[in-house]
Amino acid sequence: MIQPHGNTSLNPLYISDEIERESLINESQQLKSILLSSMAAANAVMLGGGYFTPLSGYMNLSDSLSVSQSLKTDDGLFWPIPIINLVDDVSNISCGESIALRDPNLEGNPVLAVMNVKSIESVSDADMSLMLENIFGTVDKNHPGVASFSNQGRFLISGPIKVLNFSYFPIDFPDTFKTAYEIRNEIEILGWDKVVAFQTRNPMHRAHEELCRMAISDLSADGCLIHMLLGKLKSGDIPANVRDASIRKMVEIYFPPNTVMVTGYGFDMLYAGPREALLHAIFRQNCGCSHLIVGRDHAGVGDYYGAFDAQTIFDTVPDGALKIDIYRADHTAFSKKLNKVVMMKDAQDHSKDDFVLLSGTKVREMLGNGIAPPPEFSRPEVAEILMDYYKNL
Amino acid sequence: MIQPHGNTSLNPLYISDEIERESLINESQQLKSILLSSMAAANAVMLGGGYFTPLSGYMNLSDSLSVSQSLKTDDGLFWPIPIINLVDDVSNISCGESIALRDPNLEGNPVLAVMNVKSIESVSDADMSLMLENIFGTVDKNHPGVASFSNQGRFLISGPIKVLNFSYFPIDFPDTFKTAYEIRNEIEILGWDKVVAFQTRNPMHRAHEELCRMAISDLSADGCLIHMLLGKLKSGDIPANVRDASIRKMVEIYFPPNTVMVTGYGFDMLYAGPREALLHAIFRQNCGCSHLIVGRDHAGVGDYYGAFDAQTIFDTVPDGALKIDIYRADHTAFSKKLNKVVMMKDAQDHSKDDFVLLSGTKVREMLGNGIAPPPEFSRPEVAEILMDYYKNL
Repeated sequence: MIQPHGNTSLNPLYISDEIERESLINESQQLKSILLSSMAAANAVMLGGGYFTPLSGYMNLSDSLSVSQSLKTDDGLFWPIPIINLVDDVSNISCGESIALRDPNLEGNPVLAVMNVKSIESVSDADMSLMLENIFGTVDKNHPGVASFSNQGRFLISGPIKVLNFSYFPIDFPDTFKTAYEIRNEIEILGWDKVVAFQTRNPMHRAHEELCRMAISDLSADGCLIHMLLGKLKSGDIPANVRDASIRKMVEIYFPPNTVMVTGYGFDMLYAGPREALLHAIFRQNCGCSHLIVGRDHAGVGDYYGAFDAQTIFDTVPDGALKIDIYRADHTAFSKKLNKVVMMKDAQDHSKDDFVLLSGTKVREMLGNGIAPPPEFSRPEVAEILMDYYKNL
Repeated sequence: MIQPHGNTSLNPLYISDEIERESLINESQQLKSILLSSMAAANAVMLGGGYFTPLSGYMNLSDSLSVSQSLKTDDGLFWPIPIINLVDDVSNISCGESIALRDPNLEGNPVLAVMNVKSIESVSDADMSLMLENIFGTVDKNHPGVASFSNQGRFLISGPIKVLNFSYFPIDFPDTFKTAYEIRNEIEILGWDKVVAFQTRNPMHRAHEELCRMAISDLSADGCLIHMLLGKLKSGDIPANVRDASIRKMVEIYFPPNTVMVTGYGFDMLYAGPREALLHAIFRQNCGCSHLIVGRDHAGVGDYYGAFDAQTIFDTVPDGALKIDIYRADHTAFSKKLNKVVMMKDAQDHSKDDFVLLSGTKVREMLGNGIAPPPEFSRPEVAEILMDYYKNL
């Protein structure tokens, strides 16, 4: 199987030994603590599950600036987005001590992880702008990722962490939330070698379903990992539980058994486009995938990124820095001429009218009014779940 | 006049405005405080006097490691030795706050400077070894600089400082201690353009006196800055006040008026050889000197460095990184053949017996017994001051 990123084995920071974990949980009650931002909590969950192998905790400012500017840590590890813990008050925290990191997303803010504080650094306006400009391509606060990233506070606490649980993800998504080591193990058990990952934060319509089928076929892959984001989204996006149900239904009915794995990971959406695509590739490599589907405006939002920026950025990755490859996709849509879903770039002789196309707004309006989109656009079983959701909004 | 290092003007961190300084002194009484190491205190005094222009305070770990390994800060400024504040307890200090830095060298530990804490970082054994190995060429604790540097504690506090006084230096050396801006001003008033600096931590015997005369003559310099270290030395070295008196006497009698300026700076000796020679050059450039005399084993100790390492390191300085030049010297000694002091490398036809040579041990023994060394070795007026010192030991 494909090696994890920058390491021969996966490095999950979750304390899996029950006795050690229990004792650490007890100890953590006596420690000074800080309340994490949702972004820092998501980083802890990803680190815990081995997704961010080979990192051992939160980056310091030097690594963060280096990652932002040069896509590598000071030690030369290829990495596209700072994995950091930004807080707005460090007055009760000392360098060198162990502190408890409390979960902002669970009632009572239980301890999510224990951290050994290696450094505490203040982030200047210039440092923050440099990071935002490089990661998101903008400092515009209307960008949802920029807003979340820059609202976390201006003190950066770095150091190794030990993760005690996976926050709300295993509670809210008991069947879907998986760690990278669970996925890696399942892939090993299934004996898959070539595995293509499909990233999604949306329900899957026909176009997405067929895109996975195309990728499996074009790559002669053994299977496909549908890997959905379970963390926070911008307002207006369909919640993860609805999306999860609709995807599971689609896979159950329309894919042969044991060709698709439906799973999810606990991370908030950054909408960082090209940089986030690189991060997506890294953590799918850590899951044991050989390929990642990267489509039009992957992980984008608004018109901040060019349509294929998230693909072309892979052309700039230094040789050998990533072991995973990408499968470059364009939008897919049902062709009335050919009576099947095709990739638009492969249908140069088509005009717009030759496709079954519906705008996002139009689809939401139809579903909200209890009208199923045509089956060439949405599987009826998927449409039904989404209509239920919109009806109860 | 020669420009300061990395800046168009000198950047002394001493608060010269009396009202502002008084108000800051009052405020500092309310601040949390830490007791500085002698090395960190010496850094503050040098920063206060403008010697370490263009630095604005203590470096962070990233700059310190970069300076150690690559002789430049993360911003690309040429710099040979980390200017840092290492402490062993940071439990009462928070990132982002202002703290008072207390002076370890004055009774009652008054506040020397106020610091805005930008980062607090723990320094690992690996980081410390990397710094020592690069700065001193060794991690051997028998090296006096290594011992001082590594005994300061393992938490690095970085950030800008405002300096409130110059510690014990103006008290103990009212005529000799000078800031870089005072020296620069005096040079400007004298109208000197070409100025050669002589670094010393020892009394000056005939050989050193003639070396200054040779440098002035060879360079057609307008004057010479005899610039002595007034801070801490290893045990056995002659104290600064005795050295100061003997040097002043020598200059008074044996140099024409207004050709030599006798001054001192408040810094502890590092014995870092080549790296310290580079630092010596930087802060003499900041004083307005165009040249620095670099002799055999400059700033060395024991046999840690090669005889001319402190000269050849200047061949590796990137073009334009330093504006000051060095005057390369060998040992000088009185030649019985030529009846004058010569540089040994210029007297290849001489055998050892053609010179008046005395070992350091022999000279100390003679002075201790009230015997003046021959006038070819020491000016009688200098010998007298040194005999007085040894008599009272």
